[in-house]
Amino acid sequence: MKKIINQPADIVTEMVSGLTRAYPDFIKRLDDTNVIVKTEQTSQVQLISGGGSGHEPSHAGFVGDGMLSAAVCGEVFTSPTPDQIYEASKAVNTGAGVFFIIKNYSGDVMNFDMAKDMAEMADIQVDFVIVDDDIAVENSTYTQGKRGVAGTVLVHKILGNLARSGASLVAIKKAAEVLVPEIHTIAVALSGATVPEVGRPGFELPEDEIEYGVGIHGEPGYRREKMLPSKDLAKELVDKLVLSFDGDTTSHYAILVNGMGATPLMEQFIFTNDVMDLLDDKGVKVAYSKVGNLMTSIDMAGISLTLLRLSNADWLEGLNADVKTIAWG
Amino acid sequence: MKKIINQPADIVTEMVSGLTRAYPDFIKRLDDTNVIVKTEQTSQVQLISGGGSGHEPSHAGFVGDGMLSAAVCGEVFTSPTPDQIYEASKAVNTGAGVFFIIKNYSGDVMNFDMAKDMAEMADIQVDFVIVDDDIAVENSTYTQGKRGVAGTVLVHKILGNLARSGASLVAIKKAAEVLVPEIHTIAVALSGATVPEVGRPGFELPEDEIEYGVGIHGEPGYRREKMLPSKDLAKELVDKLVLSFDGDTTSHYAILVNGMGATPLMEQFIFTNDVMDLLDDKGVKVAYSKVGNLMTSIDMAGISLTLLRLSNADWLEGLNADVKTIAWG
Repeated sequence: MKKIINQPADIVTEMVSGLTRAYPDFIKRLDDTNVIVKTEQTSQVQLISGGGSGHEPSHAGFVGDGMLSAAVCGEVFTSPTPDQIYEASKAVNTGAGVFFIIKNYSGDVMNFDMAKDMAEMADIQVDFVIVDDDIAVENSTYTQGKRGVAGTVLVHKILGNLARSGASLVAIKKAAEVLVPEIHTIAVALSGATVPEVGRPGFELPEDEIEYGVGIHGEPGYRREKMLPSKDLAKELVDKLVLSFDGDTTSHYAILVNGMGATPLMEQFIFTNDVMDLLDDKGVKVAYSKVGNLMTSIDMAGISLTLLRLSNADWLEGLNADVKTIAWG
Repeated sequence: MKKIINQPADIVTEMVSGLTRAYPDFIKRLDDTNVIVKTEQTSQVQLISGGGSGHEPSHAGFVGDGMLSAAVCGEVFTSPTPDQIYEASKAVNTGAGVFFIIKNYSGDVMNFDMAKDMAEMADIQVDFVIVDDDIAVENSTYTQGKRGVAGTVLVHKILGNLARSGASLVAIKKAAEVLVPEIHTIAVALSGATVPEVGRPGFELPEDEIEYGVGIHGEPGYRREKMLPSKDLAKELVDKLVLSFDGDTTSHYAILVNGMGATPLMEQFIFTNDVMDLLDDKGVKVAYSKVGNLMTSIDMAGISLTLLRLSNADWLEGLNADVKTIAWG
């Protein structure tokens, strides 16, 4: 598989360099790290996220006023190290503390937890939330419980707006604990992702098959079947998601249609149209929607659908608030 | 090749439906057309662009305050019809006239020209510019002269800001004629794009080869060779582009690194880093940069690089101005 890279070992360093050189007005790299921070930190609780690389624009693409204060880029599909998360915390803290948004992978949870200890020893207040929005399966290759996937970006956005408005660390923690359980995601994969160091796809699907419930590192899903029209793929995901909210079709929802990396926007919009039809049929009101490549899996072809039940009016306001980042327009 | 679609014949209709249902706050579809317009037209010269579909987010993703007033979506890789362009013109004109931004393909030029005649018969003032930024080759499968590619998006942005500021049709035409020759683009392809109705790539590249200068519909480029590291690909494109400006390394430039659809952002940022290194080496100052999938070719893997020589201070201001669109954040 052809990839536009130099040495595989330099991928993350060079990617972070390219990112920060392209957008010097509002992001910069912390020296000698793969940490990206806002150029200007305002006095607020600072949100920090991160994880393995390969999910671009997550998370560096969401660093900016109104979203993240820092993103920590691990190696490809590899958790960032505690010292880098700690460096990010030191760099952005302005006294009100830092709040970690962690996707639920065992390595990420462990390393962010160690970074929390390090930061607290340096008198930085830390709290965190673990995002586990992928309803496809319980427990996975790298996860206890459910995986954290594309819905994490909605957490960045909503908590980012809250943090910018001056909410305390306690208030953000409280909001996060109510918000995360209301975000449910499920994906369908058409192909596996190729980690550059490996050079072949993490899993192979026959030319006429798809797999439901695949994770963003190619973790197994729950069923393979023959390729179907978009509306049938949409039906599978919508039905599963609505069921996961106990069939609640009276609440208002936000939706996120997320491309996994190699799926054209054309297909993402066709799929969105089918999702809208299905939700209309069920009487579900969509109060907010977003479509695009926000949490990718390198070059995987596929799509995920996220439903966020809008049980708090602040959340819709948070989604709509203006921000200055690379990837949230 | 698996694609998330329903019937191939319905692709554009369903895509436009998905687009407009996802972002009802600022775009809508004109009834019975594949034309997307801003929900609110202010009193200004209205910019209209369009072309064949398959280049998403171009052009519908750039409809919004400060960029395009309307985008006309043709069938996949097929020029939009004159009547749809005319409908767009009628719908958005507020008396100050409409300005067409046309990529240089024979079909597009012909159909926009016919639409101009239709609009003028209805007393709508029309002017236009033809964008021909692809310096790779002269004349192509569907083109007399050079092709119009990713640099077109920079034209949307800069003229969009000018139009919003109240410039007249005459002033916009004059600005466009100075701007377009200062935008040069060149691409490298790693794979061909698959038009859904066709079901196989428009051209095939061996597993270890790339092709320089390929167009956004898979038109032939100028050379095939073995796959190279990112920095060598970057060198080929940067050298060609700087030479196309007669080796002018003293001016300031804006750059656009554009993914062709299936190329991960990770690779785009690594490539950007190499481009920045090469421009630094030459002493070229980059005053603005943008990276992402802005003018795609369905699921082609590859990248294009655009240099815009900033010979007018308004252009940088135009690039930096805030807008509300799907794809320009």
